[in-house]
Amino acid sequence: MARRSALLLMAARRGAADLQADLDRRKPGSNRFTTARREADQVRILSGVFEGVTTGTPIALLIENSDQRSQDYGDIKDLFRPGHADYTYEHKYGIRDYRGGGRSSARETAMRVAAAGIAKKFLAQQGISIRAGLSQMGSVIAEQWDWQQVNQNPFFSVDGNAVAAMEELIRELKKAGDSVGAKVRVEAHGLPVGLGEPVFDRLDADIAKALMSINAVKAVAIGDGFAVVNQRGSEHRDELTPSGFLSNHSGGVLGGLSTAQPLLADIALKPTSSIGVSGQTIDRFGQPQAIVTKGRHDPCVGIRAVPIAEAMVALVVIDHYLRHRAQCGDVTQITPNIEQR
Amino acid sequence: MARRSALLLMAARRGAADLQADLDRRKPGSNRFTTARREADQVRILSGVFEGVTTGTPIALLIENSDQRSQDYGDIKDLFRPGHADYTYEHKYGIRDYRGGGRSSARETAMRVAAAGIAKKFLAQQGISIRAGLSQMGSVIAEQWDWQQVNQNPFFSVDGNAVAAMEELIRELKKAGDSVGAKVRVEAHGLPVGLGEPVFDRLDADIAKALMSINAVKAVAIGDGFAVVNQRGSEHRDELTPSGFLSNHSGGVLGGLSTAQPLLADIALKPTSSIGVSGQTIDRFGQPQAIVTKGRHDPCVGIRAVPIAEAMVALVVIDHYLRHRAQCGDVTQITPNIEQR
Amino acid sequence: MARRSALLLMAARRGAADLQADLDRRKPGSNRFTTARREADQVRILSGVFEGVTTGTPIALLIENSDQRSQDYGDIKDLFRPGHADYTYEHKYGIRDYRGGGRSSARETAMRVAAAGIAKKFLAQQGISIRAGLSQMGSVIAEQWDWQQVNQNPFFSVDGNAVAAMEELIRELKKAGDSVGAKVRVEAHGLPVGLGEPVFDRLDADIAKALMSINAVKAVAIGDGFAVVNQRGSEHRDELTPSGFLSNHSGGVLGGLSTAQPLLADIALKPTSSIGVSGQTIDRFGQPQAIVTKGRHDPCVGIRAVPIAEAMVALVVIDHYLRHRAQCGDVTQITPNIEQR
Amino acid sequence: MARRSALLLMAARRGAADLQADLDRRKPGSNRFTTARREADQVRILSGVFEGVTTGTPIALLIENSDQRSQDYGDIKDLFRPGHADYTYEHKYGIRDYRGGGRSSARETAMRVAAAGIAKKFLAQQGISIRAGLSQMGSVIAEQWDWQQVNQNPFFSVDGNAVAAMEELIRELKKAGDSVGAKVRVEAHGLPVGLGEPVFDRLDADIAKALMSINAVKAVAIGDGFAVVNQRGSEHRDELTPSGFLSNHSGGVLGGLSTAQPLLADIALKPTSSIGVSGQTIDRFGQPQAIVTKGRHDPCVGIRAVPIAEAMVALVVIDHYLRHRAQCGDVTQITPNIEQR
Repeated sequence: MARRSALLLMAARRGAADLQADLDRRKPGSNRFTTARREADQVRILSGVFEGVTTGTPIALLIENSDQRSQDYGDIKDLFRPGHADYTYEHKYGIRDYRGGGRSSARETAMRVAAAGIAKKFLAQQGISIRAGLSQMGSVIAEQWDWQQVNQNPFFSVDGNAVAAMEELIRELKKAGDSVGAKVRVEAHGLPVGLGEPVFDRLDADIAKALMSINAVKAVAIGDGFAVVNQRGSEHRDELTPSGFLSNHSGGVLGGLSTAQPLLADIALKPTSSIGVSGQTIDRFGQPQAIVTKGRHDPCVGIRAVPIAEAMVALVVIDHYLRHRAQCGDVTQITPNIEQR
Repeated sequence: MARRSALLLMAARRGAADLQADLDRRKPGSNRFTTARREADQVRILSGVFEGVTTGTPIALLIENSDQRSQDYGDIKDLFRPGHADYTYEHKYGIRDYRGGGRSSARETAMRVAAAGIAKKFLAQQGISIRAGLSQMGSVIAEQWDWQQVNQNPFFSVDGNAVAAMEELIRELKKAGDSVGAKVRVEAHGLPVGLGEPVFDRLDADIAKALMSINAVKAVAIGDGFAVVNQRGSEHRDELTPSGFLSNHSGGVLGGLSTAQPLLADIALKPTSSIGVSGQTIDRFGQPQAIVTKGRHDPCVGIRAVPIAEAMVALVVIDHYLRHRAQCGDVTQITPNIEQR
Repeated sequence: MARRSALLLMAARRGAADLQADLDRRKPGSNRFTTARREADQVRILSGVFEGVTTGTPIALLIENSDQRSQDYGDIKDLFRPGHADYTYEHKYGIRDYRGGGRSSARETAMRVAAAGIAKKFLAQQGISIRAGLSQMGSVIAEQWDWQQVNQNPFFSVDGNAVAAMEELIRELKKAGDSVGAKVRVEAHGLPVGLGEPVFDRLDADIAKALMSINAVKAVAIGDGFAVVNQRGSEHRDELTPSGFLSNHSGGVLGGLSTAQPLLADIALKPTSSIGVSGQTIDRFGQPQAIVTKGRHDPCVGIRAVPIAEAMVALVVIDHYLRHRAQCGDVTQITPNIEQR
Repeated sequence: MARRSALLLMAARRGAADLQADLDRRKPGSNRFTTARREADQVRILSGVFEGVTTGTPIALLIENSDQRSQDYGDIKDLFRPGHADYTYEHKYGIRDYRGGGRSSARETAMRVAAAGIAKKFLAQQGISIRAGLSQMGSVIAEQWDWQQVNQNPFFSVDGNAVAAMEELIRELKKAGDSVGAKVRVEAHGLPVGLGEPVFDRLDADIAKALMSINAVKAVAIGDGFAVVNQRGSEHRDELTPSGFLSNHSGGVLGGLSTAQPLLADIALKPTSSIGVSGQTIDRFGQPQAIVTKGRHDPCVGIRAVPIAEAMVALVVIDHYLRHRAQCGDVTQITPNIEQR
């Protein structure tokens, strides 16, 4: 007969409740600085879990849309909102579901967060943890990083001292009916050496795809990112000593594989395009129109992107963890790994 | 009976010769500013082409390694070169092919360029073209862009006026035995509206993965990239008029789908880690060692990345072109698209 | 702007109701010859359909389990039922959901039927239809085929004259607490020439996988199937004339691609192993046990397999239809196809 | 540091030579009962192996076509050979490579055999072996099975006593210019419990796809195959006792997962359609033509299918072995498995 590790069994006992914590971080209406739409974001586990334990068969999760006011969208059903997917969906499919909550809505990311809740539990058992925080909102930059701060403020800011300025910025934006972009840092700690594939599914490439797939993300950087353009090789290469790497410019990936150093990624999120400032657009009939979005939208979607970024990295890491076990499960360590900084 | 479009038939007539042009741009030894290794990079078409025309069945290409001097690598076979995949490969697989030309070598990208040669021919028939150029090398920035310049200088620089400074920088680096990073812009023009998928395989996400999978790339930006962090929604959103979009901050992608505007991407390439400056490392036995790489390597791998970046974008675009035809081949246009800027 | 074909729009209007018809054919309790379990099998469309039309984005369907009496399964929770997946699931995953309705239950196929309802609507618009019928139940063979009969009798028998003997057989089996196997024929009509791929995803290979994936299926034959073993080449090869093929021994596939003749497949379904006849087994602790399954089970699962077989063929054909359009959407017919028999 | 098991290292030492043995069994011209075409079928390992050991990175193999006489095919370039893929390829792609050695040629299977040579080495280390044999050729049935006979006769017949009748049959067919079908049994021994997936990639479904993808295969059966139609549940279900299963009607798969009993599959191969008997066909212009194939072809392609069937099963099993390790690598056995018959 067979059994799974006791750790996994216990870890899974709490079921859906475990997945809810991150969902609550992502959901709108959880603080006064994001959209006023209230969505219960209550996840149900439909299959794949029995008596609090995953059964190995596919897990289906369901989050129902609860607070979707169709009337909020009626007046934009023939308009292509600038900066939105209205125009591209209409042309690709010849039809468009103009209500909120569809595929092009950030609402879709709720399920990524829920699914990643399962991944995070498994990864935690392997000693792998994921964390993310807001490092910049518009011109307000997090200068002094303290990861303890992230869950202590409504912006998930890594700098508690920046919170006041962020509050002020949000107030200003709400008044102006405008929005602003943001920068988010996401990290994975505790990875073993060697996750990833050499060519087709490099770990950094999969991280880039996963993060770029989040609504509003326009750039992804690993390690030093664009700063490498102006670095010398003698500065960038992370030298090794018997007690570990001397730096982490690479962000924890070499040749598409994890180095066991922290995996470091930064993403840029554009300002939401659903704003109260009038703009030019056209309607489905090609006629020019002015548009002002009246719905309840975030002045800075980057805030809620923090748990989503964590989720996407968790999903990529667990995939590669399992793939690595598939191919290299019989590669045994003959000397201890070096210490990692 | 059936036939393919005459255009495709004619376009394919030249066979392997057509694929060689881009390979020659990528290959080392093609100018004195890149590595002195000489590789013939001669591509053979093994299958899938008959009488100069693709047959629809899989196309196999082969490029043999010709100038690989194993002795150049013998003294690093027990060392983990900092900034290289030596350390990660050794730990993942329990074995490492220390010779050049393996999976972790930029040599692997030759085949990407060859394969993309086929994709580019097909895309050209659909009015889609891809171009790339070097926009920065270390501190030397291309200020005045002129795409005509790209193939007129050995750096594929988009600014002919920056060439002298780049030459000077390379000379300095060679003298110092050091290397430097670079920034490359890649663009696709002529895309129809709607290429991409709404969630799992967004066009921008696939572009990010493809570009991040190129050796040495550490960051990918679409459109305004990291600059969006400090933009307002009223500034970023690309307004529409009956005569087209008024701007292209989005870089040609909205909601994961192409807008038919130019697709714009930037990538950062790290400085090569194979340099003549001594550095600290460890060997396979965990002992500290000093390392100086003596092989023939590029002072700036970003130069040769230009045709590779073009190749990766071409491969992503052709995949999405075909996928779009699969799903939406029966969506008919009832009014003309707006003009694109 | 763009629009889909009016046909598709109209065809999709009825929404979930359209998918229900086949579900009702598959569901238990729909006639007195299958299991007495009653399952509503009511399908809900959760996403991807708007105002009765598919939007192009993913379609999510949900069928909730309604009549699952856990107490029916309590006494088998520590037993491995012979002929069931209990033993294999327990060993693979180290845990097993012993209640009905799980992954190893035929219940899982309800969703295949629902999903295929959408595929069939699309295929019908292309002139492609799928049909299936029971051709043998135990020793009762359908001798005189009449496809009009299939939906006129509770066994989906293609021979109305065999119905009385089938009724008699089911009665006898119920009395004995035993079960029997069956043979099902499934056909696709109206396929264009060329669906399929030459090596990796041959149409016949994908049909084989899809049909073998149905619970209880133990064999799949295309065209003449095992009868080809004793045929001569001069007999088997389907000769061509300007007015069409002279025979269809191949079952509509040559070289992995559809010939445009009817696609013909036969499957064998084993007798259900949940029977009232006592048998030997072991429990989770390795101890010998006698087992009699008391749940409400089908004496012949082959009956309900008829709509499932249709569903699986529909799903394979639509996939290949779209893939073919992706790759060969620009291959134009220059002379008319020959007539097909 | 890390290392692979010594066993794998040693096993891999012989490199390409190890892959050649099965290739030689498959290749034409190896005995006087198959086609007279001589193909060297010499495999070269292009990448992924270093100092006789797999490196973990992709392995590329190359077998060049050496004895392809284009003139043999010139007179059929405008004809659609009945029973061949000529007609379907021409219509799918609008073009057809009429020479031998293309995608629709059995020649393509040489590479499957070569690739499976690597899989078999790995599987052997896990105690898993694959074997196949001819169980019927036309009306000549292997009555007395003896697996020792398979490599002792030119037909891979499992019955040495049937060899004389098979020789006679081949002689007769050659004289008549005709061909005949065959039946092949393939088995995998030593599988652990639990290989496979519950719904999408069931082990039996993947085996069915893999075997049906072999040229000329028209039917695949697992375990008792079509005989289950006339079995009772009380007969078919394989009862369990503490000392093992009492029978193997299921052929080693329950619920899509391996039971650890021998995996048993049978396939039917059609008679080759390239025969010397004149038949009706049409040409590319729709005109009626008579056809007699003059090339050197096998009177019974089923013979050479024996190593190919082994190869396909080996490839499916290794995939599932690695997938199982990925998902269930941490499921530990707490009591010994029962003995298997």
